[in-house]
Amino acid sequence: MREFFNVTDLRQVLELVGGFPRCRTETLPLDQVLGRVLAEAFTAPDNLPDFPRATMDGYAVAASSTFGASEGNPAFLTVKRSVNMGEAPSFSIGPTEACRIPTGGMLPEGADSVVMIEHAESLDETTIEIFRSVAPGQHVLEVGEDFPKDTVIIEKGQPLRSQEIGILAAFGQKTVQVYTRPVVGILSTGDEVVGIDETPRPGQIRDINSYTLSGQVAASGGIPVSYGIVIDDRDTLYEKCSQALEGSDMLLISGGSSVGTRDYTIDILSDLPASRIMVHGISIRPGKPTILACAQDKAVWGLPGHVTSAMVVFEVVVRPFLERIAGCRPQANKRIRIPARLNRNVSSALGRTDFIRVRLIQNTDGTWAEPVLGKSGLINTMVKADGLIEIGRDTEGYDKDTAVEVLLL
Amino acid sequence: MREFFNVTDLRQVLELVGGFPRCRTETLPLDQVLGRVLAEAFTAPDNLPDFPRATMDGYAVAASSTFGASEGNPAFLTVKRSVNMGEAPSFSIGPTEACRIPTGGMLPEGADSVVMIEHAESLDETTIEIFRSVAPGQHVLEVGEDFPKDTVIIEKGQPLRSQEIGILAAFGQKTVQVYTRPVVGILSTGDEVVGIDETPRPGQIRDINSYTLSGQVAASGGIPVSYGIVIDDRDTLYEKCSQALEGSDMLLISGGSSVGTRDYTIDILSDLPASRIMVHGISIRPGKPTILACAQDKAVWGLPGHVTSAMVVFEVVVRPFLERIAGCRPQANKRIRIPARLNRNVSSALGRTDFIRVRLIQNTDGTWAEPVLGKSGLINTMVKADGLIEIGRDTEGYDKDTAVEVLLL
Repeated sequence: MREFFNVTDLRQVLELVGGFPRCRTETLPLDQVLGRVLAEAFTAPDNLPDFPRATMDGYAVAASSTFGASEGNPAFLTVKRSVNMGEAPSFSIGPTEACRIPTGGMLPEGADSVVMIEHAESLDETTIEIFRSVAPGQHVLEVGEDFPKDTVIIEKGQPLRSQEIGILAAFGQKTVQVYTRPVVGILSTGDEVVGIDETPRPGQIRDINSYTLSGQVAASGGIPVSYGIVIDDRDTLYEKCSQALEGSDMLLISGGSSVGTRDYTIDILSDLPASRIMVHGISIRPGKPTILACAQDKAVWGLPGHVTSAMVVFEVVVRPFLERIAGCRPQANKRIRIPARLNRNVSSALGRTDFIRVRLIQNTDGTWAEPVLGKSGLINTMVKADGLIEIGRDTEGYDKDTAVEVLLL
Repeated sequence: MREFFNVTDLRQVLELVGGFPRCRTETLPLDQVLGRVLAEAFTAPDNLPDFPRATMDGYAVAASSTFGASEGNPAFLTVKRSVNMGEAPSFSIGPTEACRIPTGGMLPEGADSVVMIEHAESLDETTIEIFRSVAPGQHVLEVGEDFPKDTVIIEKGQPLRSQEIGILAAFGQKTVQVYTRPVVGILSTGDEVVGIDETPRPGQIRDINSYTLSGQVAASGGIPVSYGIVIDDRDTLYEKCSQALEGSDMLLISGGSSVGTRDYTIDILSDLPASRIMVHGISIRPGKPTILACAQDKAVWGLPGHVTSAMVVFEVVVRPFLERIAGCRPQANKRIRIPARLNRNVSSALGRTDFIRVRLIQNTDGTWAEPVLGKSGLINTMVKADGLIEIGRDTEGYDKDTAVEVLLL
């Protein structure tokens, strides 16, 4: 029986991320880029706004004409026409003048601020009293105040949220250059595994990993392509792997978690064209038997056959690699981690990073992480769990009340 | 100038959610339901597993035959064949017998536990010594231990994550009944607004809300359908609203944030077939001028024209309604809220719920929420922000160090 003499530390595995190339780029219409990763920095091509805009309904004025105005000593100004929404005013404002302006309206020449309608009173058709002074720029968005021309607004490698798409719309970007979504091939192995269409005979189970991994790939921004179940036959597996590798940017092979099958998978991964084994076992639990190979510059993963182990390994190990090839800059796709406190002791082993499934509990005294009990092979632990906590390799566990961060599942 | 004499409290607005009907349901293949909402509770049709499975490589035994075994006093057992993966053993195990079994293998009749391979030693071809006793059920997943037959596993109204899809695969559910994704019509109004294809003249701005709101709808599980920009003409707006309402499960109309246009929108919403105004102003900031009408049992929203206000109102008010019609049971689609502490004082007004944009800062002493400064009309505040904090109507603000929850944007 062969053991993993040289399991790799989790941090070292994650450092390999940078060695894999990013996907190619494509240009898409603006309404199709939600969640996609920007492939070139976006620099403001103009000032935004490119004209001074009122942020209140009121009167556009030169601020200096209101200086010293008060209830007891109002400023009197002559009202000159109105600004219409969406039109550049064809007139200018002199020192003793004002004009009506709606929220969003363009300030006329000579005006630098807006007096709120509440702070003015009409005396007659053409005269208003103003009871408060305004400062230059008050109730106005100045030219370039939101984004000055030529500033970098969105960095390359940034996943696009609704607000980033809004910015691109504001500047009239009809199309955007983004990275393609990585195509991830998924293969299940194991003589006991049958398709979900089949009725398992005693001793057989249905293929779950193809579905859980596909879901995780899609939720991470990739395009899952399932290549089905491959029987534990060397030639068949080799052929399927080669074929899947051709059409994919990354490959996931689940199963073969027992030592014999694992060796077998290792051999096949070594034999793939332009391939080398990078990681053969990781000092994490669950997920120790995980294999990472690099074939044709693509990451090829041998994942545990256990559904729960495979899911955890995907979240904590595979996903950073997927985000890398998807073009995300480091830290851009900040994984959501919820700060919480442990509501019971959990133990771990030195020299190994443990991932514990937890439920989040919101109490009046804060957010608590409750470890989900049950054998690690139980899928119900994943359904009950909201997330994972990590127990580092240098500790034997955490006491109740320890502050932890929960990586959402 | 007409004011909002009867703005509605945010909690009261959110209580109206229950009055809107859910979308219809549809049956989809299992590989198309990620993120969709389950339309009928899923009950385990069988036990999972439906045969006892080994969770370790080792020897299947009757636990009683190992009782008392130790290094000094090993139990001697006769090894009888092997269990093959994916096959039901054709033999049974007697009191002094054992058989090799791989992880995931089916236990033979007579065996109730597995001795780890590390705790046994082969003496010859057919005899092993066992150094530790095992308990009945040890290293075994028992029949129904993951999910017993007839238990409810996934509740109606639950959004499906990868792990829930895995469960459905495990039970051979090829298709799943889910709610349809709500179709949300989106209209922009305003005489100053032009399409992103156009070059705005001075005084004009491009239509941003159609893009930000579409993104938010899609990110919430809906299908956005943009009906473009409607000029501020009563008949045109009425006609477009009616048309959009026909094809949608919900309607968003942004713009018309000044008092005059708002009245105008109110009139049109009142005139839609089978319509009534439910909310005319909400005591929140930003977003006070928000309107909610119910037309043909559908929620029709009049949202502020300001990009940032419209985005905030969507997240804190519209989205719970969208999740309701999408079929989510209350609390099922737990919005992610990150506990943090404020890193500076923020003020608010009594009687109004304020939403403050914040950036999350991860320091060694915990997670901090830093208010994003800048005029509320600036879109850059939304790009800089990671989320929102809520300051309740009964407080005048929060001091630095106050514990808050950040709703992610």
